[in-house]
Amino acid sequence: TIMSVGCKCAAIMPGSETNRERPFIIGVSGGTSSGKTSVCQKIIELLGESSAVNGARKVAIISQDNFYKSLNAEEIRLANNCQYNFDHPDAFDTKLMKATILDIANGRTIKIPDYDFKTHTRRKEFCEELHKCDVVLFEGILVFYHKEIRELFNMKLFVDSDADTRLSRRVLRDITDRGRTLESVLQQYTTFVKPAFEEFCLPSKKYADVIIPRGAENLVAINLIVQHIRDILNGGIIKRANG
Amino acid sequence: TIMSVGCKCAAIMPGSETNRERPFIIGVSGGTSSGKTSVCQKIIELLGESSAVNGARKVAIISQDNFYKSLNAEEIRLANNCQYNFDHPDAFDTKLMKATILDIANGRTIKIPDYDFKTHTRRKEFCEELHKCDVVLFEGILVFYHKEIRELFNMKLFVDSDADTRLSRRVLRDITDRGRTLESVLQQYTTFVKPAFEEFCLPSKKYADVIIPRGAENLVAINLIVQHIRDILNGGIIKRANG
Amino acid sequence: TIMSVGCKCAAIMPGSETNRERPFIIGVSGGTSSGKTSVCQKIIELLGESSAVNGARKVAIISQDNFYKSLNAEEIRLANNCQYNFDHPDAFDTKLMKATILDIANGRTIKIPDYDFKTHTRRKEFCEELHKCDVVLFEGILVFYHKEIRELFNMKLFVDSDADTRLSRRVLRDITDRGRTLESVLQQYTTFVKPAFEEFCLPSKKYADVIIPRGAENLVAINLIVQHIRDILNGGIIKRANG
Amino acid sequence: TIMSVGCKCAAIMPGSETNRERPFIIGVSGGTSSGKTSVCQKIIELLGESSAVNGARKVAIISQDNFYKSLNAEEIRLANNCQYNFDHPDAFDTKLMKATILDIANGRTIKIPDYDFKTHTRRKEFCEELHKCDVVLFEGILVFYHKEIRELFNMKLFVDSDADTRLSRRVLRDITDRGRTLESVLQQYTTFVKPAFEEFCLPSKKYADVIIPRGAENLVAINLIVQHIRDILNGGIIKRANG
Repeated sequence: TIMSVGCKCAAIMPGSETNRERPFIIGVSGGTSSGKTSVCQKIIELLGESSAVNGARKVAIISQDNFYKSLNAEEIRLANNCQYNFDHPDAFDTKLMKATILDIANGRTIKIPDYDFKTHTRRKEFCEELHKCDVVLFEGILVFYHKEIRELFNMKLFVDSDADTRLSRRVLRDITDRGRTLESVLQQYTTFVKPAFEEFCLPSKKYADVIIPRGAENLVAINLIVQHIRDILNGGIIKRANG
Repeated sequence: TIMSVGCKCAAIMPGSETNRERPFIIGVSGGTSSGKTSVCQKIIELLGESSAVNGARKVAIISQDNFYKSLNAEEIRLANNCQYNFDHPDAFDTKLMKATILDIANGRTIKIPDYDFKTHTRRKEFCEELHKCDVVLFEGILVFYHKEIRELFNMKLFVDSDADTRLSRRVLRDITDRGRTLESVLQQYTTFVKPAFEEFCLPSKKYADVIIPRGAENLVAINLIVQHIRDILNGGIIKRANG
Repeated sequence: TIMSVGCKCAAIMPGSETNRERPFIIGVSGGTSSGKTSVCQKIIELLGESSAVNGARKVAIISQDNFYKSLNAEEIRLANNCQYNFDHPDAFDTKLMKATILDIANGRTIKIPDYDFKTHTRRKEFCEELHKCDVVLFEGILVFYHKEIRELFNMKLFVDSDADTRLSRRVLRDITDRGRTLESVLQQYTTFVKPAFEEFCLPSKKYADVIIPRGAENLVAINLIVQHIRDILNGGIIKRANG
Repeated sequence: TIMSVGCKCAAIMPGSETNRERPFIIGVSGGTSSGKTSVCQKIIELLGESSAVNGARKVAIISQDNFYKSLNAEEIRLANNCQYNFDHPDAFDTKLMKATILDIANGRTIKIPDYDFKTHTRRKEFCEELHKCDVVLFEGILVFYHKEIRELFNMKLFVDSDADTRLSRRVLRDITDRGRTLESVLQQYTTFVKPAFEEFCLPSKKYADVIIPRGAENLVAINLIVQHIRDILNGGIIKRANG
């Protein structure tokens, strides 16, 4: 069974709980609008088409965005004026993120924070429980930033798209999907998104195991990852990777 | 006296025609919206403030855009459908461009083509005569592309701005100043502007003598160029540069 | 069974000739000393350790270096004076390279040219026959340069190491293994290797499906490729890739 | 009069002490063997050829290398085993460097530390006094690293050479001039020089006002700087720059 992003979780079919290996955790990073989520979704889509995946196996995508800190009144005021830096490492609850990934790694049931982008606070403490997964894709702009977090990933993918390509996508998305003005999108990009990318995200690219150029359109690379996940779901790889 | 871009020429005061040195020709390249024109205009502005410049001396900015080829009916149809590649070297009248720069170098009076961006044709053969200049700034995305042209420059400047910064500026300019839609701007950028930059403009950066990061806001670099031009206008440098 | 580079071929166990799928051809490019060969050899090594590979299946590495053109007397003189450009696309027999890969793709038995680096000529026409392979790794600095060749690869890997890291490795290798002087190595690098990399190899990186940073030490990426090859050897993937 | 690097100071002719403007301080950064020193020396050489420079004016080059901290016994042991990181910001006496530049800026007589590269200690506290200069070139790999230091420069130049070009030069220099082995040079480069460049020097490139590609062979850029210094020495620019 395959679960989708954050709290928009699909139903989970009960997996066979016997002989469970440790989950395989894939970190997926890249700049804003580089195609991280699209790559993860494409992986899920291609996995779903495959009859080779046992029905009882579970794959989940978790987004770093769910781990944004709840803002206080002053920070909410800044955010509403496009003056809060959502691209800085400090904007995320790193402690909770680490604890969550450790729980995943140890096969524990985890809870994903239920972050509300409109109010900039967690709606309730947690949105959904996530039982033992076989493969977890953990994606976000800064998931390779902290050593203690990136070391928890079994594989690190960096989705690499050119800066202008990424800006082009972000402008379209923020205007079309989020009803923002061109000016506010460009100002936020210039003030926060771009400098934070260059200071925090880009230098973490060197920790990637595999760089995926062009994002979700790169079906050869995605198929490579899909096949790898499929092998894990069908057993046999984890032991070797650990052995 | 200082002349401005293309055919929007300022009045020219008669220079003292005696002892004229050969003009100093500065090529200014960089990607779309890198700040080439702003840098040139800032240079002109700062030169104008200076009492050190002899009134009779002349500085001109010439844009490569004036040397676009006149389009035929079919090409105009493509252009109106955003299917004509204005960023390709073939879009420019290289032969005329070279002849013009050679004439400048030889102190001849030149004529600048009067290109009309609305009709994509030259309004009339030429728009304005340009008498012997002391310093000419020749700016455009591809002015370093052809060896035979870049060799005519006494100095080559490359205005270097990040790809996303340039796209951000271009989007604002094309929508605000030219009344285009966001979608058409981004599509043209992705289809023509970006690939042509990477194939033709960026590889010509290596011929630059000086790279000016950040564009027109970089007053230290611009002042350096301004002072250099001022020295040329006041005599004394050309001989050394040639000697 | 696994075959090694060029004409230094390992013995080939007879494969089961029934139900043969089309071979899976992987292009592996990257600059000099980027780790192309090491990556290929590590893949072979890890494949060999695996009990999952059917004994009858075959994997081969072919190097673009085997397709160097035979030099004439004048070219040999230049080569001996470090004045022949071995990094230019014209140094390779592209026509034979294409024909060979097409033969591989069509499951024909192929012959690899037997190039002698000491005499700069082919020792004899061909060194070794290579019967139907299941997976072929075709590696070289310029294997993505010609469209007609790169289109024949089912997957394109680019081994990406920093320029100074590559030079450091090349200097050590050429001095230690090939008995050359530091001066001659650096001069050849500066005169031919570096400019050719920047003009011909680097621009072909954009065609890569997967970029492997750091080369042979990147075991996570290599294991990903190994597992993919293993799946191909065990059947089941080619059909999907073609379907 | 022109002074050369560090303590190898040329004789200083007494300048006219009246109407002294504040010195013009140029920071020159770039990676190891990028050509920082060569650029500075070429500037000095070209200035010296010029009759336009008043004899009483003074130009000095100061190297960040003179500000290395004296090593203690344990650090010397590490240094002799190639285990001390001379490319880290902490290897330099930043406090003294700042105080020295401030003294220069305020027209005070300064003393340059007399660092001995053989013993890794200061030979004596100071090697040479440097009286009021008109122009100071302050060069080093990390002179833009500390905000409090880079803000003291009136102009910031970054000498930009490719990583492999720089390594090539460094290998030749360290082996030829310093009698080191290839292996030790490459190991130090890989262990300390390259990582420190990427972590500390390269990110400071964005503070540069002018980027000089190719280093000392780039005579057009160097002549631009030379002419600028000449103008400063002849008066007239500082006021404008400050005004």
